[in-house]
Amino acid sequence: MKKIYRLKDFPIDEKALMLQETLFHNANGYLGVRGNLEEGLPQEFNTMRGTYLNGFYDVIPMKQSESLCNLVEEKDTMLNVADFQSIEIFFDGERFSMLDGRAEQLCRTLDMDAGITERSLAWHTNSGKHIQICFRRMASFVRKNMFTIECRLKCLDADCGLDIHSHQKALVRNYSNPADPRVGQNNKLLLHPTVHLLENGTSVLECETTVSSLKVCTAVQHELSRKMRESISYDEIEHSCTASYSGSLKKGEELRLVKYIAVCDSRREAEPVKAALSYLGESFGELDELYEEQAEYLESFWERSLLHIETDDDSGLAMVFNQYQLLQSVGSDGICGTASKGLSGEGYEGHYFWDTEIYILPFLSCTNPELARCQLGYRYATLELARENAKLLGHKKGVLFPWRTVSGRECSGFFPAGSAQYHINGDIAYAVVQYYLMTGDFEYMAKEGAEILIETARLWMDVGNYSKGKFVINDVTGPDEYTCIVNNNYYTNASAKYNLTWAVKAARLLSDRGMWQELEARLGVSSEELEGFGKAAEAMLLPYDEALGINPQDDSFLSKPIWDFENTPKENYPLLLHYHPLCLYRHQVCKQADTVLAYFLFDGIESRETMLSSFEYYEKLTTHDSSLSNCVFSIVAARLGLKDKARSYFGDSIRSDLVNSYGNTGDGIHTANMGGSYMTIVYGFAGMTVTESGIGFAPSIPDDWRSYSFRIGYMGRSLEISVNTEKASVRLLSGEALDIRLFGQLVRLNDKTEVSI
Amino acid sequence: MKKIYRLKDFPIDEKALMLQETLFHNANGYLGVRGNLEEGLPQEFNTMRGTYLNGFYDVIPMKQSESLCNLVEEKDTMLNVADFQSIEIFFDGERFSMLDGRAEQLCRTLDMDAGITERSLAWHTNSGKHIQICFRRMASFVRKNMFTIECRLKCLDADCGLDIHSHQKALVRNYSNPADPRVGQNNKLLLHPTVHLLENGTSVLECETTVSSLKVCTAVQHELSRKMRESISYDEIEHSCTASYSGSLKKGEELRLVKYIAVCDSRREAEPVKAALSYLGESFGELDELYEEQAEYLESFWERSLLHIETDDDSGLAMVFNQYQLLQSVGSDGICGTASKGLSGEGYEGHYFWDTEIYILPFLSCTNPELARCQLGYRYATLELARENAKLLGHKKGVLFPWRTVSGRECSGFFPAGSAQYHINGDIAYAVVQYYLMTGDFEYMAKEGAEILIETARLWMDVGNYSKGKFVINDVTGPDEYTCIVNNNYYTNASAKYNLTWAVKAARLLSDRGMWQELEARLGVSSEELEGFGKAAEAMLLPYDEALGINPQDDSFLSKPIWDFENTPKENYPLLLHYHPLCLYRHQVCKQADTVLAYFLFDGIESRETMLSSFEYYEKLTTHDSSLSNCVFSIVAARLGLKDKARSYFGDSIRSDLVNSYGNTGDGIHTANMGGSYMTIVYGFAGMTVTESGIGFAPSIPDDWRSYSFRIGYMGRSLEISVNTEKASVRLLSGEALDIRLFGQLVRLNDKTEVSI
Repeated sequence: MKKIYRLKDFPIDEKALMLQETLFHNANGYLGVRGNLEEGLPQEFNTMRGTYLNGFYDVIPMKQSESLCNLVEEKDTMLNVADFQSIEIFFDGERFSMLDGRAEQLCRTLDMDAGITERSLAWHTNSGKHIQICFRRMASFVRKNMFTIECRLKCLDADCGLDIHSHQKALVRNYSNPADPRVGQNNKLLLHPTVHLLENGTSVLECETTVSSLKVCTAVQHELSRKMRESISYDEIEHSCTASYSGSLKKGEELRLVKYIAVCDSRREAEPVKAALSYLGESFGELDELYEEQAEYLESFWERSLLHIETDDDSGLAMVFNQYQLLQSVGSDGICGTASKGLSGEGYEGHYFWDTEIYILPFLSCTNPELARCQLGYRYATLELARENAKLLGHKKGVLFPWRTVSGRECSGFFPAGSAQYHINGDIAYAVVQYYLMTGDFEYMAKEGAEILIETARLWMDVGNYSKGKFVINDVTGPDEYTCIVNNNYYTNASAKYNLTWAVKAARLLSDRGMWQELEARLGVSSEELEGFGKAAEAMLLPYDEALGINPQDDSFLSKPIWDFENTPKENYPLLLHYHPLCLYRHQVCKQADTVLAYFLFDGIESRETMLSSFEYYEKLTTHDSSLSNCVFSIVAARLGLKDKARSYFGDSIRSDLVNSYGNTGDGIHTANMGGSYMTIVYGFAGMTVTESGIGFAPSIPDDWRSYSFRIGYMGRSLEISVNTEKASVRLLSGEALDIRLFGQLVRLNDKTEVSI
Repeated sequence: MKKIYRLKDFPIDEKALMLQETLFHNANGYLGVRGNLEEGLPQEFNTMRGTYLNGFYDVIPMKQSESLCNLVEEKDTMLNVADFQSIEIFFDGERFSMLDGRAEQLCRTLDMDAGITERSLAWHTNSGKHIQICFRRMASFVRKNMFTIECRLKCLDADCGLDIHSHQKALVRNYSNPADPRVGQNNKLLLHPTVHLLENGTSVLECETTVSSLKVCTAVQHELSRKMRESISYDEIEHSCTASYSGSLKKGEELRLVKYIAVCDSRREAEPVKAALSYLGESFGELDELYEEQAEYLESFWERSLLHIETDDDSGLAMVFNQYQLLQSVGSDGICGTASKGLSGEGYEGHYFWDTEIYILPFLSCTNPELARCQLGYRYATLELARENAKLLGHKKGVLFPWRTVSGRECSGFFPAGSAQYHINGDIAYAVVQYYLMTGDFEYMAKEGAEILIETARLWMDVGNYSKGKFVINDVTGPDEYTCIVNNNYYTNASAKYNLTWAVKAARLLSDRGMWQELEARLGVSSEELEGFGKAAEAMLLPYDEALGINPQDDSFLSKPIWDFENTPKENYPLLLHYHPLCLYRHQVCKQADTVLAYFLFDGIESRETMLSSFEYYEKLTTHDSSLSNCVFSIVAARLGLKDKARSYFGDSIRSDLVNSYGNTGDGIHTANMGGSYMTIVYGFAGMTVTESGIGFAPSIPDDWRSYSFRIGYMGRSLEISVNTEKASVRLLSGEALDIRLFGQLVRLNDKTEVSI
């Protein structure tokens, strides 16, 4: 199957182009460049022209409207670091632009086997000459610091004058849109030039951030068709550098310009300039090799990761697209995480949320465990900042991970919907456990995982307390931001219970292998403390309403009136943009899966009847205004046997960014939903569960699908699950035999085991 | 009894002077001038040099750290309007200053019979000449636009060279202190000059605000001792004007300079400049008459208002001080309210809170009902803004008064501790009822009061809902800001119940007099709606805990751990400056009286046992970090017969500003506490209650007091209550005979009724 996403003869307007900038961005987990037009756009166009490095940020003020004690008053913001995309082209002196009605045969392609985006079109000059133009871009997965832009030009029917100006500009600003609360509103210049060199046609710019004092260097070198080489000149002005070619394009001749860009920053390299020049030197002139490496890398990726769906619609391609975007977004060096918008745009300022642990890590743990390990490693590296955060919030022990961050420090402005989301601790703990259960990576557990589990568990002990014999957790905010600062949020309590339980288990695991003493001493853990964890987990209050037979989202949720959905006009969604928070808080209305999410993560936490009743109850109340919702409803529906609903929620999730269903994909992709759409199949339709007692499946398939299949790694083995309308099979592709559960029955998997649905 | 507060030989340092600026400010409910030193202070001194007009404000941006729907993003701020205090004096060319160690016999006096402040001292020149210096200031209660500064100089032992420069400066800024969240942090120049005249020695400056487009004019004219008149010259530069005298001071001769200042603004006068000149013209040269009027005004005020206490300490004087400050603070024109700091400083930016209705109006309703009426009139005038505020918060009907404001629009930055304090509606409704019950002013009820009661009641119907047969109110914040966004805050529900009940009663009252139809039609009130009010009031949930026999502050209050008071160091109070809000929210700890306040306002709402248990419970949890707390604990203690506690809380309240017990009196007085200290006696020790069935008393007296007495107006009558250690008496000073309750027994009050304690 060719993994190509292609758009043809698309409209050329602001909205379409903003969306394409996102959909056709090129990234490799470190470096991301939006799919902006090389030739630029008129100034009045709303465009987000951006280059981003994962984890590269500055710190900007975030004044509180009222100063309360220990509120966050500054935040990390992902920086737009340099514009090296620009290539202005003139044919017979006429400036090439897509906007003047002279462009035809428009086509934009994302080739997910090649790892390349392409934009091609035909353009005619005023005198009627026909020009073929093609741009190809790549962010190398193998050489993370390298980006290339290949530009090919051909005039079909005549000779034609040709002028090219290719720029690199260091002093760029972030995108800002004061009208939209979901993107940054800071457009101050935060980068200050430190180095500016132009030597032998290589332009080197280094800038430093204002507060975080991080440096970024971009080095650009142009490779040209032989005949062009002598006619090129270089010019530098005000921290930008331009390579100019002036000559002609002979009839039928193809001219090629390749821009090699090396990007380095001081978080990864001691001397960014030196490193950038070195990377550039290694790659310059090797475009074909770079392309080849890229394809090989992706071949291996798809081999491990591909989730293949056969349906009558384009769900299969959409799934491939989502998986590819996750690969583009995930940091792989342990000093950065995965931004909620990946590296595709500035929405949410490049912050990392729980999206990573709950929505993206499952995909990574199943297919690319070393990447999952990097993500968990990033959190471990920020443990001290999480400890400081806990102290700021008045806790005497434990760590509290930030709700949103780049550097690891809390960057939430409105704490009731930010810092108060203590479940982030449970989410990270959950991911630690799931990674361990999927990979059996005991070394990780011993080195980092157990420490995270203990320190997060400690926080629960400090934030919660016993009341009438139950362990209660007051004044926190669950995943559903339409209700803030509540008592005993079901999801939070369930995840705290899991966290506490696993802190004890981790200690036992290490103890069993004689590796507990070091950590025990270092963290000062007593057996009484572990006992306390276990007791609190046992006594954890999980709200249950006898009358309705459901789990209330929190202590007071059911005492509120149900939102008047009937009289809420369609244009008032998402509600958060149209109603004061207090108005939302005061109603039974959910932005997203909350209690329902707990049913997915903590399999078997309630009886099927309770889960079914709750599912149906919350379904009526949930607006899915968050992109993190539909996938979870799909998974839980599938597990409850509500196949049609599962299929329907899957449909709402799978194409979300491709069709811009949230209206803001222009600001960046929704990585959590992409991970979520993967999970709808693996954890939903295929019914995969992973617990201490092993891995299990309970496959089903939507009525309108022909088949789906995927491969996962589990405890050093490779498994392939294939499901079609006739049967479902699980195969052991490599590794030792093991027992798995199929629909709850233990089955020995040696070579090939098949079950019929 | 002479009502003079005097400070002698005080220290001259920043803290002392800031405090004196507040304590010796002169105000008349319209115009307030801080007691700054005429001769100025060195630039590095922290001083709040200010002139304020009640209700004169500009609108400044208040950016939210995260933009949520309909949050407040700008706020009113009371402006510092002009500096006309400055008088620089040179003796033999040496600049007079209190700071150079040459000042002696320092004395500052607030004469509350005369309505004048005085600062007098002796100063010696380097050559040893002894100068007597005296400044007197007055903000006229009779001519609200007039302020005077009288300066008298005498050299006792020699002739002395004398130079005086008296300034008026229009372009002033507000005080700012970025380190203190309780004062403003805006120091932009918000006033822009529109008129600048200097004619016949009269300096006229008019300025306009930036956003609110209000104009203020200050006109200054100097009256001089005869011999000085010829040696005076005037100079203007950059929107400031200086009158300069150069001459000499003969041995033993007293020279006098009087500065007459007229202040007018465009909220009250169509042409402020014209009006200011007219006021100035009427008063110029009439200082003695102004002084006389002032004394007469105060004589009448004290006649009506004086609460006289005889004790061994200075409680009596402190009470007089508090009453005087209230008079200085209360707006009397119906277009302004009473700022929490009066007109004495910029703390809380000159905003009006519930302080007015719950803490200050009782004093006014008892003694100066026309002022009470003005305050209620201000709220009525802002009804439309309150309706808009309700809409912004998502309510379909009713009005929601702003938690803090000048203009009437909501100015809370952090809504969980601001807009969410819905009890403001109940507080205003309560004040409407109490004013009516005290005065019998039916005309007010018909014209304004009933409408407020109906519209506030409507909001409760929209914010609350039925749950399990009870009317519940979710997601509001009660008076205690150490717990935010709670369900069924006892105080809020109690005040909503009262509000709803009285909306029905008001309708019936008007109906009984045939005056309901107009309002009924205008507001579209149906009998079903009124029935709904009654039903909701009846079904109102008032939390009660069987086990403890107390009223929990809200639904979940008791499930939280009690604050660790034992391990909280003294320097960590007030807690709000040392702990993150979430940390406070999650504990049983109260900033101030909350449930206990309900016991005072809604007399008889619970059984004595419940109130006693609750009182004792909350007493242990309350830090009194708010200045609104001690007085309430005193009142309720007195009513519960806990005499020693009542006395002790009274002691914590009565001298609060005089001894700067909250450490921030430098930013302004605490008017609510001042009203509260009045109430501790009238409503506390004297046990006054006013209900539909009449007025009652249950007098007691602290063991260490000799006597107390006060006069109040009630339903057109004047009553005097005198209590000493032997007996308590209630006398009817004027008006028709009436029945009153004494310790619950009906007594006919004709001429004089006495009861023994």
